[in-house]
Amino acid sequence: RCHHPVVEMLDLPFLPFCILLGVLGFVCVAFVSAWCQYWRGGFAWDGSIQMFNWHPVLMVTGMVVLYGAASLVYRLPVSWSGPKLPWKVLHSSLALAAFILAVLGLVAVFRFHNDHGTPNMYSLHSWLGLATILLFSCQWLAGFSTFLLPWAPAWLRGLYKPVHVFFGSTILLLAVASCVSGINEKLFFSLKNGTTQYKLLPAEAVFANTLGLLILLFGVLVLGALARPSWKRPDADSPDSRQ
Amino acid sequence: RCHHPVVEMLDLPFLPFCILLGVLGFVCVAFVSAWCQYWRGGFAWDGSIQMFNWHPVLMVTGMVVLYGAASLVYRLPVSWSGPKLPWKVLHSSLALAAFILAVLGLVAVFRFHNDHGTPNMYSLHSWLGLATILLFSCQWLAGFSTFLLPWAPAWLRGLYKPVHVFFGSTILLLAVASCVSGINEKLFFSLKNGTTQYKLLPAEAVFANTLGLLILLFGVLVLGALARPSWKRPDADSPDSRQ
Repeated sequence: RCHHPVVEMLDLPFLPFCILLGVLGFVCVAFVSAWCQYWRGGFAWDGSIQMFNWHPVLMVTGMVVLYGAASLVYRLPVSWSGPKLPWKVLHSSLALAAFILAVLGLVAVFRFHNDHGTPNMYSLHSWLGLATILLFSCQWLAGFSTFLLPWAPAWLRGLYKPVHVFFGSTILLLAVASCVSGINEKLFFSLKNGTTQYKLLPAEAVFANTLGLLILLFGVLVLGALARPSWKRPDADSPDSRQ
Repeated sequence: RCHHPVVEMLDLPFLPFCILLGVLGFVCVAFVSAWCQYWRGGFAWDGSIQMFNWHPVLMVTGMVVLYGAASLVYRLPVSWSGPKLPWKVLHSSLALAAFILAVLGLVAVFRFHNDHGTPNMYSLHSWLGLATILLFSCQWLAGFSTFLLPWAPAWLRGLYKPVHVFFGSTILLLAVASCVSGINEKLFFSLKNGTTQYKLLPAEAVFANTLGLLILLFGVLVLGALARPSWKRPDADSPDSRQ
């Protein structure tokens, strides 16, 4: 691949960026946990509003932070030499962990709704969030069957790979849009009375709005890292036939 | 640039994709206009709720559809030969039109809020939306001064170009997330009473939720088209010194 010298000069090394991203991901998880613990009454697994509180924590941890980590595995220069299989196992394990957290996050909100007679799946947030997780389940299964199981021929791997890469970024974008709309919705639900109304911008609103912007920043940085040509595996365009 | 033959096989031509995208963009504008006209009481420019209705229409038309069109100008194969200046003028004019609509969209919501004593800038949607438009104004000014005005040296153009490209995609992502959170928020505000409550999923909710998903689809297709290596200007990595 050829780059203009000025573009080469701009190249950041991947590892310091990765550490920064790890810190930002940790901050996102800490913020969403602190919001639910300090302002929203903490956690339980009993159908109460404390059970709902697992929903934002599990979704941000799974669909944003762990998902982002999974998506960047092949950008680690150390993964470019030697056998590819361990990195594939790491990529699919992180994605599976993200998926499991997302499913638990769905259980938390559905059980809370059902125990309170609240309808499910009416808001744009819920449509978008469920669509994101359905797409992610297809993505995981198709990736597992094509790249990890031994039967797929090289031409099929080569054909599916750009599709997998495209949907990998798309699902993260959808997850981030789901988080932002969900935080916005939750604040309108929760901050209704007296001096803590959302429109009076109490401390909780500033904190959770900031959380939303941090999640967006995390998503934008991961998507930018994925798109950056110089951070791609040097043989990224070659067919993927090793197992 | 080199591509694997299988990846080459997957290549769609850009023009049919562009027509599909144009139809989808038109459908988004038609949906948001129909929503505000049919269910939200139509349009006016008088500080009333009918003035607010311009906000979603102007934002979707400007920050999503026109912005998307502006971002894809250099993907038109016809722009790859001959002088680059007319295409630069087209790119910056479309972006400027998008920006003007966005500013009018801001005026619509601020004046509606001010005339009704509603605070501004408290929700995550408002923070994100304003951040998007502020970033866009910096992007436009920096692009205009660096690429259209004659003073910037080639090394500066080469240095700024990847930054401009990165923020170009980022701003569209933020705009789409703003639209989704805004539609979700508006539906919770508007659908509160009796049989038209949002949670009962009336026809308006299905229609506006679908609008949200169509906007997301439009955004994902534009971002995917921008990222697609085979649709990039063949000299995309070379310094940009022609005016």
